[in-house]
Amino acid sequence: MISTVSSFAMVQDDLSAVERTLAETAQPDHPLLGPLLSMVLPGNGKRLRPALAYLVGRLGTYQPEAMLNMASGVELLHAASLVHDDVVDESDLRRGSQTLFTRIGNALAVLVGDYLFAQSATRCVATGDIRVIGLFAQTLASMCQGQIEEASRGGQPHLTVTREAYFQTIWGKTASLFVLACEGSAILAGLAEPQIAAMRRFGDRLGLAFQVADDILDFVGDEEHLGKPVGSDLRQGTITLPVICLRELLDGDAYRQAFGAEDVAGVIELVRTSGAVERARAEADRLLDEAREALQVTPAGDARDALEALTSYVVDRRV
Amino acid sequence: MISTVSSFAMVQDDLSAVERTLAETAQPDHPLLGPLLSMVLPGNGKRLRPALAYLVGRLGTYQPEAMLNMASGVELLHAASLVHDDVVDESDLRRGSQTLFTRIGNALAVLVGDYLFAQSATRCVATGDIRVIGLFAQTLASMCQGQIEEASRGGQPHLTVTREAYFQTIWGKTASLFVLACEGSAILAGLAEPQIAAMRRFGDRLGLAFQVADDILDFVGDEEHLGKPVGSDLRQGTITLPVICLRELLDGDAYRQAFGAEDVAGVIELVRTSGAVERARAEADRLLDEAREALQVTPAGDARDALEALTSYVVDRRV
Repeated sequence: MISTVSSFAMVQDDLSAVERTLAETAQPDHPLLGPLLSMVLPGNGKRLRPALAYLVGRLGTYQPEAMLNMASGVELLHAASLVHDDVVDESDLRRGSQTLFTRIGNALAVLVGDYLFAQSATRCVATGDIRVIGLFAQTLASMCQGQIEEASRGGQPHLTVTREAYFQTIWGKTASLFVLACEGSAILAGLAEPQIAAMRRFGDRLGLAFQVADDILDFVGDEEHLGKPVGSDLRQGTITLPVICLRELLDGDAYRQAFGAEDVAGVIELVRTSGAVERARAEADRLLDEAREALQVTPAGDARDALEALTSYVVDRRV
Repeated sequence: MISTVSSFAMVQDDLSAVERTLAETAQPDHPLLGPLLSMVLPGNGKRLRPALAYLVGRLGTYQPEAMLNMASGVELLHAASLVHDDVVDESDLRRGSQTLFTRIGNALAVLVGDYLFAQSATRCVATGDIRVIGLFAQTLASMCQGQIEEASRGGQPHLTVTREAYFQTIWGKTASLFVLACEGSAILAGLAEPQIAAMRRFGDRLGLAFQVADDILDFVGDEEHLGKPVGSDLRQGTITLPVICLRELLDGDAYRQAFGAEDVAGVIELVRTSGAVERARAEADRLLDEAREALQVTPAGDARDALEALTSYVVDRRV
């Protein structure tokens, strides 16, 4: 069994190339764009999505140039969406650092996000594969739709956010980008159609599990690592799977009573102690099992082992 | 000589098809997206950019499906940029109507703009021509860069905004979209390379003239037709060509004195009476001459005559 560390190590040179591409995209020589873009690119993230893209790319015929464009395009799309997320949520902090929104204000943050979308489009177009480019456009639409669903739900009563609505929303806002990374790379690597479909499913399940794990961390993570208070989603009125699980565990009256008291700290404690977190974790584990099952369709080897190791990473991470 | 009315009439059926595509894109059956998108699509504009695209398309081999995607993609990109412009400028009114920003707030307006960018990408990808798709991605980047330049210039002293900086900014924010409409359609229509280059130049010059005319209208238009107060740009601190022309006409001391008094109404009056407007108009006329010259490279016929007629429209319009 390969460890997560080895999964990233296997594509270390590739990820360094992505890092250089992101640094170039930040236009260090441009007096206006340089300082703005350097606040979000290059970042200090794990580059999980580029790593996924490269590992899937290694299941087939490795295409260095197309893969660099694919991996960079996916990461730029991720960066763009984070910038607009922080605008939409008016967030001060992300991973303990000031957000671009806080540093440069609403107007410029909207435009820098747009610029990153444009750079992401440029990279995806540079793959030269029209099917991959089409997938990019679909992904962008799905991500926006997911965000609109979440943002519009602000004032909605807790009782009406169903499991189905939750999963539809996180598919758009998170899993669709994992699908782009995995399915797009499978296409570029020239995998057979059933394997491309399997990689689509792998990205889909892994992305959903990643977001469920994220939503669990919001309740059980430690504030220092999270860089934000525990229960931030709920405090903002965003209902995630642990709360939906709490609703399923309590009877209707008890649930309404818990929320009726408008004691957010009390609800957070209830999510942590009622078994709701374990129930949500079981859901993430089920999704990861399905992701691993999808992997079995692809050729055995180091790349597949590394992808399997990455499935554990998405739920074991602390931040 | 064909009149502007006839130019639009020549592509009336095509523009109706664009209108139907935009109405579909507004997702009338989606409970969440439908009401939001229907506020900006379908609009009541002239559809100048789609008309341009179709007329250029008729200079070569008419490709109905690709052209519908091209024209709709260009109009969706225009719509997306207007939504984000209003967010960036915190504008209450556009053409006398409440902006989406005012109606649904900052967060949702950002996301609806993003969604329109995604739909625009989808349409451009659907042309199936990778060169056109690349041009779309470049256009998106140029538009963002133009907007960032304008937004960043807010606090800059008037004396430092040069003609060159002004033209670079309006190329990005306005002319680049005209280039996409004209060059993209020339490619799809299978024109020869020198004609494609000429159509790029035509869109470039026409787009710049269009923005210069817009910036003149801000000083001389009537408030009822504009749907906003005269001199809005200057009141917001945006320096446009008429003000640059005023600076060129006055000596340095007189110019500094005019601005030093912080009497915006006085400066507006000075722009209107000093000959600055006429000077800016001469610049727009020069650009239109260059646009007409570029047209001469293309095959003579109704489509070319209609495009020539449209060049007058962009400077003669009242709003």
